[in-house]
Amino acid sequence: MAPLITFLTDFGLADDFVGTCHGVIAKIAPDARVIDITHGIRPGRVLQGALMLANTLPYMPVGIHLAVVDPGVGGGRRALAIRDAGGRHHVGPDNGLLLPAVDRFGGVAAVHELANPDYSLQPVSRTFHGRDLFSPAAAHLASGVDLAELGPPLDPEALVRLEIPQSQIGANRIRATALAIDRFGNVALNVRRDQLETLDLAAGTRVELTCRGEHFFAVSARTFADAPRGQLILYDDSYGNLALAVSSGDAAQLIRAEEGTEIFLELDVP
Amino acid sequence: MAPLITFLTDFGLADDFVGTCHGVIAKIAPDARVIDITHGIRPGRVLQGALMLANTLPYMPVGIHLAVVDPGVGGGRRALAIRDAGGRHHVGPDNGLLLPAVDRFGGVAAVHELANPDYSLQPVSRTFHGRDLFSPAAAHLASGVDLAELGPPLDPEALVRLEIPQSQIGANRIRATALAIDRFGNVALNVRRDQLETLDLAAGTRVELTCRGEHFFAVSARTFADAPRGQLILYDDSYGNLALAVSSGDAAQLIRAEEGTEIFLELDVP
Amino acid sequence: MAPLITFLTDFGLADDFVGTCHGVIAKIAPDARVIDITHGIRPGRVLQGALMLANTLPYMPVGIHLAVVDPGVGGGRRALAIRDAGGRHHVGPDNGLLLPAVDRFGGVAAVHELANPDYSLQPVSRTFHGRDLFSPAAAHLASGVDLAELGPPLDPEALVRLEIPQSQIGANRIRATALAIDRFGNVALNVRRDQLETLDLAAGTRVELTCRGEHFFAVSARTFADAPRGQLILYDDSYGNLALAVSSGDAAQLIRAEEGTEIFLELDVP
Repeated sequence: MAPLITFLTDFGLADDFVGTCHGVIAKIAPDARVIDITHGIRPGRVLQGALMLANTLPYMPVGIHLAVVDPGVGGGRRALAIRDAGGRHHVGPDNGLLLPAVDRFGGVAAVHELANPDYSLQPVSRTFHGRDLFSPAAAHLASGVDLAELGPPLDPEALVRLEIPQSQIGANRIRATALAIDRFGNVALNVRRDQLETLDLAAGTRVELTCRGEHFFAVSARTFADAPRGQLILYDDSYGNLALAVSSGDAAQLIRAEEGTEIFLELDVP
Repeated sequence: MAPLITFLTDFGLADDFVGTCHGVIAKIAPDARVIDITHGIRPGRVLQGALMLANTLPYMPVGIHLAVVDPGVGGGRRALAIRDAGGRHHVGPDNGLLLPAVDRFGGVAAVHELANPDYSLQPVSRTFHGRDLFSPAAAHLASGVDLAELGPPLDPEALVRLEIPQSQIGANRIRATALAIDRFGNVALNVRRDQLETLDLAAGTRVELTCRGEHFFAVSARTFADAPRGQLILYDDSYGNLALAVSSGDAAQLIRAEEGTEIFLELDVP
Repeated sequence: MAPLITFLTDFGLADDFVGTCHGVIAKIAPDARVIDITHGIRPGRVLQGALMLANTLPYMPVGIHLAVVDPGVGGGRRALAIRDAGGRHHVGPDNGLLLPAVDRFGGVAAVHELANPDYSLQPVSRTFHGRDLFSPAAAHLASGVDLAELGPPLDPEALVRLEIPQSQIGANRIRATALAIDRFGNVALNVRRDQLETLDLAAGTRVELTCRGEHFFAVSARTFADAPRGQLILYDDSYGNLALAVSSGDAAQLIRAEEGTEIFLELDVP
């Protein structure tokens, strides 16, 4: 079976960044197969990228998981290759991007800094480490190079970790943050269904929602098709988060939510 | 030769939906190759997806043709796998999306409902059947699983069919509908050249066009380069439809046409 | 090793154009692998496509390099297959798109017109030569068909060449043109660092910049992370061009630059 590299960035597809990395990988590891998870992370949004990696890697074959959302490129941040406790490899910047996914597979088993010039393009540019540093490292790992060859080991405890916003869950009130907004305008919240055992969110429950000072009513539902067109619904999304949607509409636009926006939910509305 | 899956959706590329499906397929059918036809169908536009599938599958190798434009996900609509009379397989929702393409290959030879839990991810989420139900079914078919294994047979006559808008063609007048608008602003109409045998549309013919109550003049031409910059032209597009374009411009923007907009053409303008 | 085709166009990904070409290639050359460099060239911008090809092909494995930015499709322009002095093949329209990249590999060794109907889809449509003419030619080359089989040889001197805007570099003044603007709003100029030997652009140098009659101050820096948020910087981009960026911002938006905009730089600002 061909070695597999997954690839997630904030590069977009309008420029050559992604294609150039594919070329670099193909030159070093001609047999490797690349699956593009997405390149639509918004520019520089490390948290958005980290959460999407953590959500999606369980659906990917075991492989080399390359990720680049790297606003600090060319500065002091380190470049990493990690092997997790489940045997997957992760390549990317030391800015917190990789760790939420690594934690899903049991945490860091080993981490090395990408410091060996034999495994990068020379010279390494100051602004495109995706091409010159990260893609070559991933391709060399895919070709069978040992993790320890890429550079010196690092202390897993010293890696940069992101602060992930935490929700507050009261008796009948939730203070949540919008984590992600997708193409359909669905808004994923930082609340997981298993946090809600004390709350009654049975299908049909009416919920008052406050976002940017404006009030809305939503109804708990199991899927989009359960609600009339235009109805704001609260549902469990396919990654296990509580989420907001509008049947045949755009919830983010309706309530003017962006990633990071605070949203208050009040249940048991009479 | 590796088994081939083609893939068309309205998922867009900004999120992880497409990449996650690629991962799911690669886990089940590591040797399968996936060709992305497009993921740019506008959200929920089943007709647009169905027409694009029908136009493009003749250019694709025989394979498993996976398509998901599925505003009714999680509701009562059934999930299908079809074998057409030409030996191709089609996987997607029972909302009319698949049939125009299936008809191009001689119609339904067999259709089964995706009901066998051995061939889906468990549990199946309520909102992402692309990942949990359709991609696994396509991947299992690509791995050699027999269509009949996926679930019980259905009556081909009972499948949901789309209503495709029909044009009206008079002696020197056409009442048409915009079927598709592409990146270049070209507007494909629901009129095929072979419907126009009684009309004289020789290159250079002047045509009056009415769209949203406004009038425009167009000239029949063979290709964009035949007309001066900015000229509205009527031509045969590469899939055999009559279409509108502006040389070095955007016809849809000029005449304010969207998918579904009615457009009247009057020929033989003096 | 599977034969490799790289693919660059202005087709975008919202329509089926790219996917259909992938299908056509897979039918003719089932073993060929396709790397998409980008399909985000702005519609009809031949120069933008040509520069991106020239920048990126050195990062691609030797292969068949297919490129289609072709506003003159269906008109009189010829269709080409070129072998360069380095043994790479290039397929695309005779509008200047291919030559800057070909020149990077030593220039044209042989060029043939795509005129042999055995190696195109029949009939060739007037508006989608990417599908009917260029993709089939690339796929046949990937399958081992000899260049000379595709059609008659042409005189390399007779090929269409683009005029590439030239910068003017004075003692402490540069008159430049924006060549490319990327997703991050970074503006690449038509100035290469090796042209600047007589100028002092050491990190920290202050530069006055004039764009569309408005004045800005920029600072020479090595990478985005060297400057405070919001600071306009002048740096060497990863392809060796002088470029403008805003740390954590969008330089093109700030100075209202588009591709082709003239930008004046004055150094040694007191």
